[in-house]
Amino acid sequence: MVTLDDVRAAAARLTDRVHRTPVLRSTSLGELWGVRLDLKAEVFQRTGSFKARGALNKVLSLPPDERARGVITLSAGNAGAAVAYAAASVGVPGTVVMPATAVPAKIAACRGYGADVVLTDGDLLETYAATVAETGRVPVHPFDDPAVVAGTGTVGLEIAEDVPDVEVVLVPVGGGGLISGVAAALARLAPGVRVIGVEPETADVMTRSLAAGGPVRHPTARSVADGLAAPMSGQVTVDHVQAFVEQVVTVSDEDILRALPLAVSRTKLLLEPSAAAPLAALMTGVLDLPPGTRVVSIASGGNVDLTLFGRLTT
Amino acid sequence: MVTLDDVRAAAARLTDRVHRTPVLRSTSLGELWGVRLDLKAEVFQRTGSFKARGALNKVLSLPPDERARGVITLSAGNAGAAVAYAAASVGVPGTVVMPATAVPAKIAACRGYGADVVLTDGDLLETYAATVAETGRVPVHPFDDPAVVAGTGTVGLEIAEDVPDVEVVLVPVGGGGLISGVAAALARLAPGVRVIGVEPETADVMTRSLAAGGPVRHPTARSVADGLAAPMSGQVTVDHVQAFVEQVVTVSDEDILRALPLAVSRTKLLLEPSAAAPLAALMTGVLDLPPGTRVVSIASGGNVDLTLFGRLTT
Repeated sequence: MVTLDDVRAAAARLTDRVHRTPVLRSTSLGELWGVRLDLKAEVFQRTGSFKARGALNKVLSLPPDERARGVITLSAGNAGAAVAYAAASVGVPGTVVMPATAVPAKIAACRGYGADVVLTDGDLLETYAATVAETGRVPVHPFDDPAVVAGTGTVGLEIAEDVPDVEVVLVPVGGGGLISGVAAALARLAPGVRVIGVEPETADVMTRSLAAGGPVRHPTARSVADGLAAPMSGQVTVDHVQAFVEQVVTVSDEDILRALPLAVSRTKLLLEPSAAAPLAALMTGVLDLPPGTRVVSIASGGNVDLTLFGRLTT
Repeated sequence: MVTLDDVRAAAARLTDRVHRTPVLRSTSLGELWGVRLDLKAEVFQRTGSFKARGALNKVLSLPPDERARGVITLSAGNAGAAVAYAAASVGVPGTVVMPATAVPAKIAACRGYGADVVLTDGDLLETYAATVAETGRVPVHPFDDPAVVAGTGTVGLEIAEDVPDVEVVLVPVGGGGLISGVAAALARLAPGVRVIGVEPETADVMTRSLAAGGPVRHPTARSVADGLAAPMSGQVTVDHVQAFVEQVVTVSDEDILRALPLAVSRTKLLLEPSAAAPLAALMTGVLDLPPGTRVVSIASGGNVDLTLFGRLTT
């Protein structure tokens, strides 16, 4: 299990390489939903999502000889940009294997950080394995790695410091890397804080994992919250969620798409759908929190195709 | 002319009633455009725009007997919400006269602050005059009033404090209230700072005013930057712009609509088109700033219909 010392060590490593993001009060949404609401604005994080923290902590934790080989990951989204950024930040080569259908802006982001991008319209995992073998670069898992979890735990550390009276922390859940780190940190720093995960009902791999008592695959996972549509969980993340997370709830894509434009209009922050999932849970009332509860919701990222908003109404 | 003491007095009056908004670094846009760029994030201001500052300073500056009568303004947009908020904040009645075609969300915002909203599809100025006479409430001009200008000047005060090495401040220009206050403050606090206004070429009332040597009307002013489409300038604002502003440049609606999604995607801030006008000027190169210039651009507001983004591409 990731310890508080691991998270503190990650925070020390990451200093000056990632932003300490602000916690922003959202009075208007809080009043609407009957809670006192703050957003932890990881939208302002380097690469536009919290993923930079875990990827960078992993790369900085590698022994020098491994680090020198460079790193590689598999991603259609934020994890790819994060690994590309981490590699550039440390000065080693990076490779991102992406499906040929990936959003052009995300491909461009990886290339913008100097990474080699390998696009495939064939089998993604096979291409990844072949590229790892061919390049000799060190694989960085998007979530199921203690160093990645310790890195994301720094979000929890900052919440505990910046919102000392926090009662509930809401976390979007995909493969579980973010919630694992945040919950591991808060369980030791502020054990009374309730950490609650929110995942799409059509991409509920963590709910399935908790029911199964261990990691599962969910190859048909799909959601408008693309960052949460992980096709699997992992041993590391399921262990942490079992140990430290109070509950994981699900929301529909429809509710995410209702909460998203409302939240963007009120907070003036560009949120990607994943970041709106916990807000959808507040909106629907599925959480049943006591009125006035001090809530911090993690606005996990802001990488979204703006044309999406053309199809939504506030 | 508004003095530095007027602006400081406004700042004291506004404490705890408006937000001291953050200045956020935009590394990515700055690199793209060859400057060091910060955004003064008035999108986070109460009511979603800087207008709250001027309206509130005006209401707080009224003698007690006038203030007790309540206030009234004429607006289809941010100034209406600002006067409604100011009235509610001070505990006096407020009225906003709006065209019946105003955006429903903006009508709802005024009502949400408890203001009486008078909608008309007749002559707006006639309805306004009649409603002023009937209610006896004190008219608050959206920009052409020294108390409003002193209130907006607090934006300049904060920029001088938070960005001591600022060289250029870019300000969206409609009727000129924001730039008048900002320039009046900076001219005294940091006389080396260049204050540059940016207005739409199809709503260039300040450019016309400077050419004419005094306030003019421009009834056909139209722009996608609805907050900048003022149909007139005023004596107060033209005097201040003549005295304190280095230059006013224009940008096309097309360039505003190119800069807007780019800026929102990169900064993760929801900007209304008005707030993107200065960024369009950076984008087109019309300003011809020396490379590396330390620029603060005022992100004046974030009240925008999100469906606009469906029609734009990044």
